[in-house]
Amino acid sequence: MEFTIHQIAGMLKGEVRGNGNQKINMLAKIQDAKEGQIAFLANPKYEQYIYTTNASAVIVGKDFQPKKEISASLIIVDDAYSSFTILLEEYHKVVLFQKSGIEQPCFIGDKTVVGENVYRGAFSYIGTNVKIGNNAKIYPHVFIGDGVTIGDNVILHPSVKLYEGTRIGNNCVIHAGTVIGSDGFGFAPQEDGSYKTIPQLGNVIIEDNVTIGANTVIDCATMFGDSTIIHEGVKLDNLIQIAHNVEIGKNTVIAAQAGVSGSTKVGENCMIAGQVGISGHLVIANNSSFGAQSGVSKSITKEGERFLGYPAYNITDYFRSYAIFKKLPELNYRLRDLEKKMESI
Amino acid sequence: MEFTIHQIAGMLKGEVRGNGNQKINMLAKIQDAKEGQIAFLANPKYEQYIYTTNASAVIVGKDFQPKKEISASLIIVDDAYSSFTILLEEYHKVVLFQKSGIEQPCFIGDKTVVGENVYRGAFSYIGTNVKIGNNAKIYPHVFIGDGVTIGDNVILHPSVKLYEGTRIGNNCVIHAGTVIGSDGFGFAPQEDGSYKTIPQLGNVIIEDNVTIGANTVIDCATMFGDSTIIHEGVKLDNLIQIAHNVEIGKNTVIAAQAGVSGSTKVGENCMIAGQVGISGHLVIANNSSFGAQSGVSKSITKEGERFLGYPAYNITDYFRSYAIFKKLPELNYRLRDLEKKMESI
Amino acid sequence: MEFTIHQIAGMLKGEVRGNGNQKINMLAKIQDAKEGQIAFLANPKYEQYIYTTNASAVIVGKDFQPKKEISASLIIVDDAYSSFTILLEEYHKVVLFQKSGIEQPCFIGDKTVVGENVYRGAFSYIGTNVKIGNNAKIYPHVFIGDGVTIGDNVILHPSVKLYEGTRIGNNCVIHAGTVIGSDGFGFAPQEDGSYKTIPQLGNVIIEDNVTIGANTVIDCATMFGDSTIIHEGVKLDNLIQIAHNVEIGKNTVIAAQAGVSGSTKVGENCMIAGQVGISGHLVIANNSSFGAQSGVSKSITKEGERFLGYPAYNITDYFRSYAIFKKLPELNYRLRDLEKKMESI
Repeated sequence: MEFTIHQIAGMLKGEVRGNGNQKINMLAKIQDAKEGQIAFLANPKYEQYIYTTNASAVIVGKDFQPKKEISASLIIVDDAYSSFTILLEEYHKVVLFQKSGIEQPCFIGDKTVVGENVYRGAFSYIGTNVKIGNNAKIYPHVFIGDGVTIGDNVILHPSVKLYEGTRIGNNCVIHAGTVIGSDGFGFAPQEDGSYKTIPQLGNVIIEDNVTIGANTVIDCATMFGDSTIIHEGVKLDNLIQIAHNVEIGKNTVIAAQAGVSGSTKVGENCMIAGQVGISGHLVIANNSSFGAQSGVSKSITKEGERFLGYPAYNITDYFRSYAIFKKLPELNYRLRDLEKKMESI
Repeated sequence: MEFTIHQIAGMLKGEVRGNGNQKINMLAKIQDAKEGQIAFLANPKYEQYIYTTNASAVIVGKDFQPKKEISASLIIVDDAYSSFTILLEEYHKVVLFQKSGIEQPCFIGDKTVVGENVYRGAFSYIGTNVKIGNNAKIYPHVFIGDGVTIGDNVILHPSVKLYEGTRIGNNCVIHAGTVIGSDGFGFAPQEDGSYKTIPQLGNVIIEDNVTIGANTVIDCATMFGDSTIIHEGVKLDNLIQIAHNVEIGKNTVIAAQAGVSGSTKVGENCMIAGQVGISGHLVIANNSSFGAQSGVSKSITKEGERFLGYPAYNITDYFRSYAIFKKLPELNYRLRDLEKKMESI
Repeated sequence: MEFTIHQIAGMLKGEVRGNGNQKINMLAKIQDAKEGQIAFLANPKYEQYIYTTNASAVIVGKDFQPKKEISASLIIVDDAYSSFTILLEEYHKVVLFQKSGIEQPCFIGDKTVVGENVYRGAFSYIGTNVKIGNNAKIYPHVFIGDGVTIGDNVILHPSVKLYEGTRIGNNCVIHAGTVIGSDGFGFAPQEDGSYKTIPQLGNVIIEDNVTIGANTVIDCATMFGDSTIIHEGVKLDNLIQIAHNVEIGKNTVIAAQAGVSGSTKVGENCMIAGQVGISGHLVIANNSSFGAQSGVSKSITKEGERFLGYPAYNITDYFRSYAIFKKLPELNYRLRDLEKKMESI
């Protein structure tokens, strides 16, 4: 990105004091900023830095009264912090979507339709009968299987793998190494102790505005026409396991290394902490919350409860019990002591 | 795939009622099926759909007596459900092995021998001195290191990585992103607090009929000539850690996110649930079963037992103790109550 | 590698007995060794094999007195085991760094500077403005984003992904499939229950002599100019999660499937066992040690302590409590018994 200070001030509805024609190519913290960079001053604790910063511009609130000379140009706004945040987000969008064009070599199959302004990195692989919307960013080493459909404004980071038939909505971001649509873990035990593979023929549907971290795995549904579904607005962290036929409700957030077993339906707006495990074939009510490393073995019908432990139950009760657990040896002595006294009666 | 209804009936040893010349290209559920698709009716609950389905053919049992007109052709068999299962499996095989030929660009090293009917996807990398059997499907971005040997009918999904010297048996399936043969975690502490890397020079052997999920990691053995071994028929799920020199016995099943530490030998026909951790240098008896999130810290000599907890012990005993754990605050009050009464005596 | 027995004896400062001109191309165990291979005899238990081995050379201690004829040449050294270890390490270095040259096709961006003697595997991708030191080994399917810097003697195994701006020191080894620099898990809750993505604009710094296992993920820091930092000499195993803004102190060792949440600072020389989870925003003292599957929810200020449990506390106390936990049903009966007796008084 490269904007003049005037252009940035326009974006922020601010007023320039100083030279507005200088070019800005980066955001920075006020104490670290270099020439060509823009910083902000919101917390008075940092005021000292504005007099020494090498930033070309600093965003300040309209109440700010300089006590010394400032070499940087100023952009004066109502709220310096929220203006900087707006800038951060704009910058982020620009960075995210700056890649464009087609790097060679890359692979694209027959009957595949690609939207406008799509970046296709070198060594990316797109199969046959694929549909990709506008503004997609497909990084190097991405694999898109046959028959996949992808919406608009989707970012697939390096080496994301989408198995055949996966459907991705609009505005989704999937981080590097994540696998979507791999076979569910389904095996039928045979009389000789071996297992026969149950064909996994469904797919995965990722709705709009979903973000998925790195090296996560989402398995496809077992049956034809069935789908593992990640609903709108869900945020999944890194190294998560989502098994076959699972459904994750709208706006639910799952932290790293958690796992959800086959056919479980997690409600909307749930919070699932790191390393939580949820058993298969459960239904979890909306707004449920699970502390780190919980093991969930039963369905939850009441909304808005918090859980911990293995098997997980009410988090406050768990902590109460755990407090006594820590004193169990003492409890045991007290009990022995009572027993002795009782005998001597 | 594309077969006529007559051909499918032949495969299932069934009888056609209606037009047998129509072509079928897909399986579907009876309520969702479209023209060109075949469905089945086994559960009487779904009978209503057979009168309205758009399927071109429906598989029905010989006892089925239509109550209305049916536009679909029928294939009459002994058992509709098991016939459909046969069809599913056939279809699955066709889908799995439909890829063929060599997509460009792909890389193949010197002195490498590849069997017949092998698919090599674009951007797949095969090193030197590699041997690959017949019917292998090597998807895009797969990495096969020098000196690897691979049996017949093996499927390596996108971006599977096989380090140098790995050996894979027949009929194995490995899902996307899985790493086999990475260095074991071996470091010798030095006097200055730093660690020196212990060279990892062994390999990994995967025997026949093994299935491995996505983003799983299996480390190589430490010493020359030693191997980490996954025995015949083992099924590993996604995101599993198998450390150096581990041996997993025949037909053992391990669910997602479980981990087995270095040099542990897991017996045959064990069931290891999700997120279980097994310590290093243990021996686990055949037919052992571990509940989700168990932490196994001791060898198990008696076969066929079930475990839970950290450290894991008998699952029934664990649940009994856990039931009391939940009541610990109450227990504590009862104890205090007794102590008071005792004092007052 | 291929050396004569004389050359190897020179390397080990040993003396040759027998034909020193034969060529050695591999190390092996004495019981398995073939022609052209070198073995060692240190443990007298294995002496029987020296009389029958097919090894071309065997390293023995100067005290060794053969009781029968030996067909292999001998290299006589002070300590056979440590000499073999030296050989192992030399061999390992040769193996690690034997790859060289540039395989085609591979991708390299503008303004990128690559040192001497660098291996670039086929389908490796190097972005723009990247700096790579000498002797780097960049395996196939590696992705190196724009602006990344990499020191000398670094090995990036297949499909390692380094996001934009990542900095890697000297002598680092990163195993296959690992992702460095992916977005931290940061989302701001909105009034309608949805989440807005917080831009993640920092990077990751990996200092010298760090080893990282396979399919591990390290997220970038949130703010501009901030970094997630893995300090010198740290050893990370497979499938580990390191969240945004985390700092891992010098020479700390973390086993597989452990996770550290955002902004936590782990001290130096800590030992973190497998599947441990550490909460966010904590400070962990140097030399802390955590047993497998611990859940760490509070900062630790005293150095050198050992922890277990969820939430984790003193490991000895945990085991004491757990011993009583196993007897809780019995404890409960004893308590009931006392209550009855008390009533009857």
